[in-house]
Amino acid sequence: MCRWVAWLGKPVFMEDLISRPEHSLIHQSRDAHCCKTAINADGVGVAWYGARPEPGIYKDTRPAWSDPNLLQIARQIAAPVFLAHVRASTGSATSYNNCHPFAVGRWSFMHNGMVGGFGKLRRRAEMGIDEDIYAHRYGATDSEAVFLTALGLGLDASPLDAMAHAVRQLEGMAAEIGATPGMRFTSCWSDGHTLYAARYASDAFAPSMYYQRSAEGTLIVSEPLDSDGGSWTEVPPNTAVIATQADFSVVPFMSDVATPNVVAQGEMPRTLSVTGA
Amino acid sequence: MCRWVAWLGKPVFMEDLISRPEHSLIHQSRDAHCCKTAINADGVGVAWYGARPEPGIYKDTRPAWSDPNLLQIARQIAAPVFLAHVRASTGSATSYNNCHPFAVGRWSFMHNGMVGGFGKLRRRAEMGIDEDIYAHRYGATDSEAVFLTALGLGLDASPLDAMAHAVRQLEGMAAEIGATPGMRFTSCWSDGHTLYAARYASDAFAPSMYYQRSAEGTLIVSEPLDSDGGSWTEVPPNTAVIATQADFSVVPFMSDVATPNVVAQGEMPRTLSVTGA
Amino acid sequence: MCRWVAWLGKPVFMEDLISRPEHSLIHQSRDAHCCKTAINADGVGVAWYGARPEPGIYKDTRPAWSDPNLLQIARQIAAPVFLAHVRASTGSATSYNNCHPFAVGRWSFMHNGMVGGFGKLRRRAEMGIDEDIYAHRYGATDSEAVFLTALGLGLDASPLDAMAHAVRQLEGMAAEIGATPGMRFTSCWSDGHTLYAARYASDAFAPSMYYQRSAEGTLIVSEPLDSDGGSWTEVPPNTAVIATQADFSVVPFMSDVATPNVVAQGEMPRTLSVTGA
Amino acid sequence: MCRWVAWLGKPVFMEDLISRPEHSLIHQSRDAHCCKTAINADGVGVAWYGARPEPGIYKDTRPAWSDPNLLQIARQIAAPVFLAHVRASTGSATSYNNCHPFAVGRWSFMHNGMVGGFGKLRRRAEMGIDEDIYAHRYGATDSEAVFLTALGLGLDASPLDAMAHAVRQLEGMAAEIGATPGMRFTSCWSDGHTLYAARYASDAFAPSMYYQRSAEGTLIVSEPLDSDGGSWTEVPPNTAVIATQADFSVVPFMSDVATPNVVAQGEMPRTLSVTGA
Repeated sequence: MCRWVAWLGKPVFMEDLISRPEHSLIHQSRDAHCCKTAINADGVGVAWYGARPEPGIYKDTRPAWSDPNLLQIARQIAAPVFLAHVRASTGSATSYNNCHPFAVGRWSFMHNGMVGGFGKLRRRAEMGIDEDIYAHRYGATDSEAVFLTALGLGLDASPLDAMAHAVRQLEGMAAEIGATPGMRFTSCWSDGHTLYAARYASDAFAPSMYYQRSAEGTLIVSEPLDSDGGSWTEVPPNTAVIATQADFSVVPFMSDVATPNVVAQGEMPRTLSVTGA
Repeated sequence: MCRWVAWLGKPVFMEDLISRPEHSLIHQSRDAHCCKTAINADGVGVAWYGARPEPGIYKDTRPAWSDPNLLQIARQIAAPVFLAHVRASTGSATSYNNCHPFAVGRWSFMHNGMVGGFGKLRRRAEMGIDEDIYAHRYGATDSEAVFLTALGLGLDASPLDAMAHAVRQLEGMAAEIGATPGMRFTSCWSDGHTLYAARYASDAFAPSMYYQRSAEGTLIVSEPLDSDGGSWTEVPPNTAVIATQADFSVVPFMSDVATPNVVAQGEMPRTLSVTGA
Repeated sequence: MCRWVAWLGKPVFMEDLISRPEHSLIHQSRDAHCCKTAINADGVGVAWYGARPEPGIYKDTRPAWSDPNLLQIARQIAAPVFLAHVRASTGSATSYNNCHPFAVGRWSFMHNGMVGGFGKLRRRAEMGIDEDIYAHRYGATDSEAVFLTALGLGLDASPLDAMAHAVRQLEGMAAEIGATPGMRFTSCWSDGHTLYAARYASDAFAPSMYYQRSAEGTLIVSEPLDSDGGSWTEVPPNTAVIATQADFSVVPFMSDVATPNVVAQGEMPRTLSVTGA
Repeated sequence: MCRWVAWLGKPVFMEDLISRPEHSLIHQSRDAHCCKTAINADGVGVAWYGARPEPGIYKDTRPAWSDPNLLQIARQIAAPVFLAHVRASTGSATSYNNCHPFAVGRWSFMHNGMVGGFGKLRRRAEMGIDEDIYAHRYGATDSEAVFLTALGLGLDASPLDAMAHAVRQLEGMAAEIGATPGMRFTSCWSDGHTLYAARYASDAFAPSMYYQRSAEGTLIVSEPLDSDGGSWTEVPPNTAVIATQADFSVVPFMSDVATPNVVAQGEMPRTLSVTGA
């Protein structure tokens, strides 16, 4: 389980959410409240939209609290849209390429949750990524696999639907090998103009997600940044939030997405045949 | 292109090859002579066989010359068999998982060379890795892909043949997309008892390889560790060297391995079909 | 506050203490019981005595639980004497040079505790290090300052006395600026033949220290490695433990060491005078 | 020897100087032309003046060419004033705290050169840093020592004079121990409004420095960023350049700064006396 915060609104310094609040993201990296793993010290990352159409990305494997570069960047950069994440690995290594947010073109993506049994189905999951997207498969996480799958399924054209179908595709693979729990997914993604966030699980334990709106903008988080419970709205499971500079909406997520007919596992070649040798 | 050294014989301190000679591996990391890239500063690694059947592995992304841990380990550890490598990336990122040597069970492997066009055929290459081996696909390099492919093709039973078939399999993929150069492969691998090293290229430019034998043991290198040219024997292309504590032999490599009938590219699903959504 | 373990006896694999026990050092790095800071993730290090008179040193800034090199070294290396440490910074940065153990020549040293007000008296403390030793001042920690001070005060000749005088010297500096708490010191040091460990504080809160003896050797720790409380002996404050392969003794520490007449703070030049310009 | 570039003028993206030109700073990190050490791979750093009075600092120990964070920051951030540096160590370790630029308050500083014999006079040099500044002594380099000495000598009030006196103070220490070469100093420093750069050596070998002016602003470098020699003006030794958004001047440096009467080495306590024990 990981912790994340995302902002869309007037430009704010990233440190105002990452290091300043009572229960800031850096504070959560040492002592998270709403998830089983209180320590989220397996990497940190931010994606911010500034002077370019594509986001700037800073990621590092150090714990957030001891990363001087993160503090500097968060203090210097004010952005109208940014995503920030601290990671607690559910299996894959602590490495730059396994840190969130992931970015391809103008899209960025971060995730809290897991694809059940991913260690066993990684090769299948990677085959489910579109060939044209595959060059962006840098790491080994289930999270990046969901994002790249969604890109191949049309994230550009249908940001919410493509993500839902990607989640269903990976969830289906987990179900085929009987993994329990299956999919847990509380994620946020953006193209720099719109912020999408969704909460879902195959079971009753979807990781938490909250938002807070003000005249300044919309803040979406995996857990509140302060103890003022009243100011935060919990997002129910099977629900997505969509925020732009002008609009805000809460919509169903996953409810109408059927399980895909994925290629059955038995039909996949275990390896390429080598003959004639 | 990368630089490497390997030892099998009486136990010697790794620093005797890594940091002490006139043209030691660390010296080569700053100023290699026999390859186009004089700087090999994209990671360093050693695999040594000591108290356990499986090798110990130390890898780091720092340049070899500024890595205090490497110097300490090389100074403290004497081993009868070890492999050491400094990396110059041919495309993939500088990360722990992309550093050589790679290890699975009792096997270790390191490589100098490239699979032509690997950026375009990585997904195919990864599909060519046996499913039971795939959990060991940690990085994104062509080198690790060759090693894991060989493991799936029976490296345990036929260390030289399985490697040759793996090389042919990847070479075939490169040929299919018309990559030039195709395969360049000067590698070394071991199970802790026998040291294998081979030199091969699809074209006339197989990366260099030399050995030096003494009463103490066998030393195999990508380029000589000193300027005493007379004491080093160059290994010709299409040739492998096999060394144990008792024996030493030079044998043909790749000459009788036909191109595999790999699954044609068109038959591969570009992506899993998602229907019913 | 930090956590540490030290061994002297028959050679044992470092992993048997670092990663294997129920409440191993790596486990303590995430969830220490006997100290205020449950997370000790600001660096890790080991010093082992093997084939050389001086120790081998491995240190890294990653959390211990995500450091593959640490696991490899701990699994491969069996040593008759070693010290291992996970760090929770009390102020100085997370960097290689601030990680414990520190080593000079055949000596190694690690520390749990603090010198009160060290941020304000670092320059004075560094002036208290002998000029011939100063080249070994690589980092900025109070711990390294204590060790280097002790080396200058004759650690070679009087390992326990020199350390006690170093502790008193730094404690005196802390007292002069009215720092509270003053000195907290639970440390272990070795020349490869004898293991020294001592527990002390200026106040009533000396950090905990325990030992366990068996036919195999002596194990000294900052907190027990398992929940079998009965097998561990707590070392009282103002007490040192001395272990060799043949002997073991528990002796007073600091009780007869008077406060040094350090050069009064006012006598120290604030800066070199620059005249004649 | 190191390589650096500095900019003051209209805001430009840092990548326009760091990674884009024919002979960009990153290119120089692999293949510098104007200095003995062609490889500058012992750390990289940038200081930029953006939304805050104090600069933002990004530093890392990776070679510049393999640092994805550096590329991202350089691509996203446009600044009216920035300093960028790639390091080739002259002795001290590769660590974050030894990377340039160094920053205290609104000041940043970077250096190419060396203080002769610094390994032997580091303790003296550190005693020459004002006590109030000493908390900013994070690393072990001669470069940082020059900067902090200058801060203590009044950099705020007299940016050029204070630096000259600091250089003379360190040069004097080197001379006292007969170090050859003594001081080599080609440095750049800024408070965010004015850019200062100076070239000096105790001998005839002051490291090179060039500038280029345009309607956009002033660019100062340790060696030209392209092969168009005609567009670059070499700064002679004993000369400083001062640039603001409105003005540009070239002035003498060091010519009227006498050697300071530093406290004679013999008068310095080798260590604090410890009596009464």
